[in-house]
Amino acid sequence: MTADHTSDTGLLAPGWAGSPAADATSDTAFLHALLDAETALTRAQAALGLAPAEAADAVTGAADPARFDIRSLASRARAGGNPVIPLVADLTAAVGEPYGPYVHRGATSQDILDTAAMLVAVRTLDLVLDGLAHTERALARLAAGHRDAPMPGRTLTQHAVPTTFGLKAAGWRSLVLDARDRVSHVRHTLPVQLGGAAGTLAAFQAYGAQDATALTEAYARELGLAALPLPWHTLRTPVADLAGCLAFTTGALGKLGEDVLTLSRTEIGEVAEGSGGGSSAMPHKANPVRATLLAAAARRAPQLAATLYGSLAAGDERPAGAWHAEWEPLRDLLRLAGGAARDAAGLAEGLRVNTEAMRRDLDLTGGLIVSERLSAALAPRLGRARAKELLTALARRTHTEQRPLAELLGEEPELKDLDLADLTDPTHYTGFAGALTDRALERR
Amino acid sequence: MTADHTSDTGLLAPGWAGSPAADATSDTAFLHALLDAETALTRAQAALGLAPAEAADAVTGAADPARFDIRSLASRARAGGNPVIPLVADLTAAVGEPYGPYVHRGATSQDILDTAAMLVAVRTLDLVLDGLAHTERALARLAAGHRDAPMPGRTLTQHAVPTTFGLKAAGWRSLVLDARDRVSHVRHTLPVQLGGAAGTLAAFQAYGAQDATALTEAYARELGLAALPLPWHTLRTPVADLAGCLAFTTGALGKLGEDVLTLSRTEIGEVAEGSGGGSSAMPHKANPVRATLLAAAARRAPQLAATLYGSLAAGDERPAGAWHAEWEPLRDLLRLAGGAARDAAGLAEGLRVNTEAMRRDLDLTGGLIVSERLSAALAPRLGRARAKELLTALARRTHTEQRPLAELLGEEPELKDLDLADLTDPTHYTGFAGALTDRALERR
Amino acid sequence: MTADHTSDTGLLAPGWAGSPAADATSDTAFLHALLDAETALTRAQAALGLAPAEAADAVTGAADPARFDIRSLASRARAGGNPVIPLVADLTAAVGEPYGPYVHRGATSQDILDTAAMLVAVRTLDLVLDGLAHTERALARLAAGHRDAPMPGRTLTQHAVPTTFGLKAAGWRSLVLDARDRVSHVRHTLPVQLGGAAGTLAAFQAYGAQDATALTEAYARELGLAALPLPWHTLRTPVADLAGCLAFTTGALGKLGEDVLTLSRTEIGEVAEGSGGGSSAMPHKANPVRATLLAAAARRAPQLAATLYGSLAAGDERPAGAWHAEWEPLRDLLRLAGGAARDAAGLAEGLRVNTEAMRRDLDLTGGLIVSERLSAALAPRLGRARAKELLTALARRTHTEQRPLAELLGEEPELKDLDLADLTDPTHYTGFAGALTDRALERR
Amino acid sequence: MTADHTSDTGLLAPGWAGSPAADATSDTAFLHALLDAETALTRAQAALGLAPAEAADAVTGAADPARFDIRSLASRARAGGNPVIPLVADLTAAVGEPYGPYVHRGATSQDILDTAAMLVAVRTLDLVLDGLAHTERALARLAAGHRDAPMPGRTLTQHAVPTTFGLKAAGWRSLVLDARDRVSHVRHTLPVQLGGAAGTLAAFQAYGAQDATALTEAYARELGLAALPLPWHTLRTPVADLAGCLAFTTGALGKLGEDVLTLSRTEIGEVAEGSGGGSSAMPHKANPVRATLLAAAARRAPQLAATLYGSLAAGDERPAGAWHAEWEPLRDLLRLAGGAARDAAGLAEGLRVNTEAMRRDLDLTGGLIVSERLSAALAPRLGRARAKELLTALARRTHTEQRPLAELLGEEPELKDLDLADLTDPTHYTGFAGALTDRALERR
Repeated sequence: MTADHTSDTGLLAPGWAGSPAADATSDTAFLHALLDAETALTRAQAALGLAPAEAADAVTGAADPARFDIRSLASRARAGGNPVIPLVADLTAAVGEPYGPYVHRGATSQDILDTAAMLVAVRTLDLVLDGLAHTERALARLAAGHRDAPMPGRTLTQHAVPTTFGLKAAGWRSLVLDARDRVSHVRHTLPVQLGGAAGTLAAFQAYGAQDATALTEAYARELGLAALPLPWHTLRTPVADLAGCLAFTTGALGKLGEDVLTLSRTEIGEVAEGSGGGSSAMPHKANPVRATLLAAAARRAPQLAATLYGSLAAGDERPAGAWHAEWEPLRDLLRLAGGAARDAAGLAEGLRVNTEAMRRDLDLTGGLIVSERLSAALAPRLGRARAKELLTALARRTHTEQRPLAELLGEEPELKDLDLADLTDPTHYTGFAGALTDRALERR
Repeated sequence: MTADHTSDTGLLAPGWAGSPAADATSDTAFLHALLDAETALTRAQAALGLAPAEAADAVTGAADPARFDIRSLASRARAGGNPVIPLVADLTAAVGEPYGPYVHRGATSQDILDTAAMLVAVRTLDLVLDGLAHTERALARLAAGHRDAPMPGRTLTQHAVPTTFGLKAAGWRSLVLDARDRVSHVRHTLPVQLGGAAGTLAAFQAYGAQDATALTEAYARELGLAALPLPWHTLRTPVADLAGCLAFTTGALGKLGEDVLTLSRTEIGEVAEGSGGGSSAMPHKANPVRATLLAAAARRAPQLAATLYGSLAAGDERPAGAWHAEWEPLRDLLRLAGGAARDAAGLAEGLRVNTEAMRRDLDLTGGLIVSERLSAALAPRLGRARAKELLTALARRTHTEQRPLAELLGEEPELKDLDLADLTDPTHYTGFAGALTDRALERR
Repeated sequence: MTADHTSDTGLLAPGWAGSPAADATSDTAFLHALLDAETALTRAQAALGLAPAEAADAVTGAADPARFDIRSLASRARAGGNPVIPLVADLTAAVGEPYGPYVHRGATSQDILDTAAMLVAVRTLDLVLDGLAHTERALARLAAGHRDAPMPGRTLTQHAVPTTFGLKAAGWRSLVLDARDRVSHVRHTLPVQLGGAAGTLAAFQAYGAQDATALTEAYARELGLAALPLPWHTLRTPVADLAGCLAFTTGALGKLGEDVLTLSRTEIGEVAEGSGGGSSAMPHKANPVRATLLAAAARRAPQLAATLYGSLAAGDERPAGAWHAEWEPLRDLLRLAGGAARDAAGLAEGLRVNTEAMRRDLDLTGGLIVSERLSAALAPRLGRARAKELLTALARRTHTEQRPLAELLGEEPELKDLDLADLTDPTHYTGFAGALTDRALERR
Repeated sequence: MTADHTSDTGLLAPGWAGSPAADATSDTAFLHALLDAETALTRAQAALGLAPAEAADAVTGAADPARFDIRSLASRARAGGNPVIPLVADLTAAVGEPYGPYVHRGATSQDILDTAAMLVAVRTLDLVLDGLAHTERALARLAAGHRDAPMPGRTLTQHAVPTTFGLKAAGWRSLVLDARDRVSHVRHTLPVQLGGAAGTLAAFQAYGAQDATALTEAYARELGLAALPLPWHTLRTPVADLAGCLAFTTGALGKLGEDVLTLSRTEIGEVAEGSGGGSSAMPHKANPVRATLLAAAARRAPQLAATLYGSLAAGDERPAGAWHAEWEPLRDLLRLAGGAARDAAGLAEGLRVNTEAMRRDLDLTGGLIVSERLSAALAPRLGRARAKELLTALARRTHTEQRPLAELLGEEPELKDLDLADLTDPTHYTGFAGALTDRALERR
């Protein structure tokens, strides 16, 4: 315990603890990525003849993460303000002579740390995409399976007009696909960083590089990342793009969470999580825990993204603060999105849908939920003003007399020959919900 | 004055007051857009035979913004929580019989308000794009014109190695192009909103619409906006995309602002704004006002975007709060980005570059700014360890003895035959700055 | 309309449009406050003999807000980046000779703008406090009047154990009192700003001031603000304190809003706004508009406060951006809090409480809402493990058999002699809700 | 390494890694605090006769943190959404019969987690206060020691008028004292949480509690925390107060960081960190690392605080998301503030002040830095308009002719008899800087 007294393992983070994204973003994962970045750089130099092949082998061989003491690196990172400085020292020592000098040759700390962050990001985005894929498939099944299940449409918390659960699930899926498209796009643009001390690649030139692009491209090939025309030490587009797609993803899944929370309220019960969370003291409770964690993530992600957008204003050739302020928020965002994608998949795959409850709730307003339809239907017959006046009066009476609207309408002589049973049946007023659902499900 | 006691005209907003974006986002502009949205909806219905052509003409004719009292609309908006409700009442009255009933027919307030917001956004994004275009052209000229002007590269506030002003300006331009690409993409995806009371288009069906797509597409055609497969009352992708591209733009211009602020410091003076702002008390002051306003905008935009990302978690078929929380922050972001694009163009077009000051500053460290180069050059000759030791010792002596590094190096017998004048000339160590600048300028 | 094409009147802001806080924070109100700050400074100098009494009279007399053109000031503010520079020019011209030179003498723009902002803040905080006072009184009445009205306590959206509406309202009031205390404290600490060009008061000394404190204190007396030991041009404690108390207030009222939104859902209906907002298309709708606007404000305020907290890192003797970034967010926060306080008062004063619906909802779980109590009661008799096992089994049966828990318990031979009617009555398990309510209401 | 693959040790956090605050806020520290909260609750019940003394001893004895597996707790926390549920299971098992049932008796998870968070907060705030105390003492020494050291006052990045380093340091200290006062106030108000399942304390009553206050007060005594009149499960004043004082502290220290970053720029060099951070490639670099980390923290804290203020809108008797969204941001804020307080102390204690550089920089504008003074001095002699005209002309000539203002003024016949040497000496125009410094240092 004492040895471990400053490490975190997710005790305060049920939203991402134990998820694949947690592993992919841990300090250990960052150490791996930092070593990947260092070794790829030496290999890229060797590939261009700027370093001996033996140096590439020696550095790659020495970069076994298990040899490095993260806690010591973290502690020594304080002196220079970043963990690459002590890591280079340890890796150089591990390589030893004669190839130690090829470690980090020509590079600056930011080249390695930014590249490692992009590696971690790519690896985590793949997990996010996997979670989103599972989520959208489950939501597609829900939408198709309940295409015509009528339920109350709710606006500003009040029943408005009927909708269907199919359309609702199709909407959730649409957001998930929007998130997928944004994440997938960004994932394929994330670049290596290579600029040297101040972004001119001067040291690489001093060590023999012949042009401004070959080394960066070789480096990118080694790591499967993109190469940008310019070093981006203070041109933080990749980080801002990550902020945007991750805030979007977490927010999109937050919509799913919010709706499930509302629909699983005790009074509504139209959906329930497959395995709700329990309570020690109350044997009956089954809490919508996955939805709760989605909602919590969606409350945090925007502000983390704001910090990253704020770091776009990065001064000079390396900023004193704006860069350092990115590291933890970027990881936090990756974790939140990764954990949320996992939870969303679980939630969607296990969601229990209670169409009887939906049907029951449609009747809660005694037929008022179709008042819009009646306005349209009665206006040609009564005139628009008289129709509205009548409906407003009857709406009041459904409350005071606790009688259904259809019954009250039936007492109006002018409306005798209307098919009031049809007109006031909420299940007959779902508009184009079915067609919209079909169209949305065509999207792949 | 009394009549105007609650209106704002930009007194606290030198960053956007008087800009084209200010006009494009004013309450008056929103009123125009709301009327555009209402009239287009009636015309779209007429185009599909769902309303008489005369109704379209009557509604379009009545929708003269000058007829409507914004202050009264704002005040009456409180009752229902949005300005569309009183606007529909006033527009219906203005149309009169028999076509008044065709105003807003089948729609919900959110259809109109969201569509109007997208119209305002499109119009403002065009202004943003215009400002960005001016900015990038001016920056391209600066980069090309100063391609090889050497200046200190600065990291964590300290001189690191030389760079060039050409590369610096090319970097600023690269961010501006990134902003342009993101804004331009979003601008062309912004959709009309059409869903009716709860997103099922049911009332439109009740009024005769035959399918789920034709009306939305006709509506989009009327307004030059896109059409989405689903109503997006609570699928807020368009708003989140706006948040992302506007926070990006403002942040990208904030980088330009930060750098200009630093480079125009009294002690540095490597650049100056064409027309600095004055001071009433200090006749000598010429403040970098445009850069200051860019920096201010970049401090605010991320948090406004965060509020919009937070509204992705929009519950039900219309949320009670998340939607309402979008309106002012979205406008604020449009204004900040529009004002910043104007200021950036002015800043870039007028920027005065003092290459002599840059040259002077390169010598401030007595040659230490090329210590990285010397490390590389001396290592083969002295061994890496001895080279580092020597340079560290000499670096200390340049401080204590106030003598240039070249002079101290010249006293080292081992280095006699080196071309120290070349090796220690900061202007000879700009790496691939020129080539990188060229490559960056190829981007259009 | 054309003359007014860039002014805003609250069309997008039903939350604060038309409120006293809207008037108190308008551009016009800022103009008043700027003039108040200028005239008070001249009067303070006159009071200390640093300027003729006639100058004080002349400046005060000339500072009629109606004489000044806000739109022109806003436009000319762009040159120097703040509105004080053109205002000083106009005011000096309005005073004319010989006393024009006493306008703004010795001061810097920030002295005036910061002081004006504090005046606006004080005036708006008084309105906020008034709204909070009305709110807390109405909530006290609600809490006392429904002290023992039982209702479901809800955790993670599910019924947990009973509570009372009295305790709920007392909790809302407790937050309102916390807000009042924080706002009231900050309100009385807000200071004038007086430092001169770089915070040394040097120009005032040059014009004859004898010590560092007398003028600031005289200035503070003129305006009824506090005086701090140091100029605070870049020591932004007053602004940060405003950020904190306003974000707190808006958030605290957001809790009230959230709860009212939930409790007024169609399915719950335990409370309703006195005058809900209507819908043009759906005659039956009565939306919880006040609660919606409270929720919307609470979504925005934290990010505005974040921008202000971010401006604490204000460099130099006047920062280039951090200061300018404060003006609009500070006003927005004042408006949101002021509007929210108004809406909260209206909401609390008009809230309709449906204790029958509360009573009905207590029975929704068939008695499971008291399962915690039964655990405690049965454990001594059955042993803890057996009690839990039995209750879990019966909880499942209440669902599957749709029978109340009391009935199922009554069939258990071991429990024959227990007073099950009492034990399973939700109204008998409200704990110390009454006593807690009483205690909370003792706070004044 | 594999065993540790998801733990974090601060690799990305040089700002707080290895600080006392890191230890005080680790998962291990939270486990300690959770166990402290559980054991104190049983002891408080025993103190009131609601549980046997032996139960208190048994629970206290079993709660050895080393017995518990944090990783397993974190993993099992997912099911119910918080770590207390599995911890109660493990602690109950560890206590065994017969006293296991007294573990957590009557409490809800939130009682324990909130109380533990307050314990962690109190312990960390004490560390923050310690760091602030060291910082303010060092700043007081700097202010007193350099009370009269003149330096350029800078506004909007430009030299304005002279100030002193004493006043600057006194200003930094003033902010630190403001932070201390706010932190210290909040630290002494942080309460235990005790409400039971839905805040009515009903289960405690069921287990024999006689009144609503005694148990909470006994619980508070056990832990040295405060007791509030009401359970605050959804009345989040303590968390919001923490957000405010921590964002304030981090921002206040960020001002120190920003100023040190500027003043230690290569071109300025008026201060330097005692031990600047090095660079692997550039032997000459000494980066202002402590200031950089302060600036980075100040960029992040406001947005974390925003998330906490956002959670004030906590619905129902326990919210589904708002509460869960607090845990990590609150810890992050505590860490950032704790790390920043450590770094600020180190920075202030080691800061090297170069008064010669300050003196040198005062002359950079050739005397224009006292133009304000000359305006005041010449106006009575030349008339205000003529004085301004002359100074503006001469200011231009100091630039174009590169001659000092004093020399140019000396050529003006009208000014012959003025003591221009005195009038243009920047060290003679520091206003009340000394007196203000003295006054500020009187504050304790």
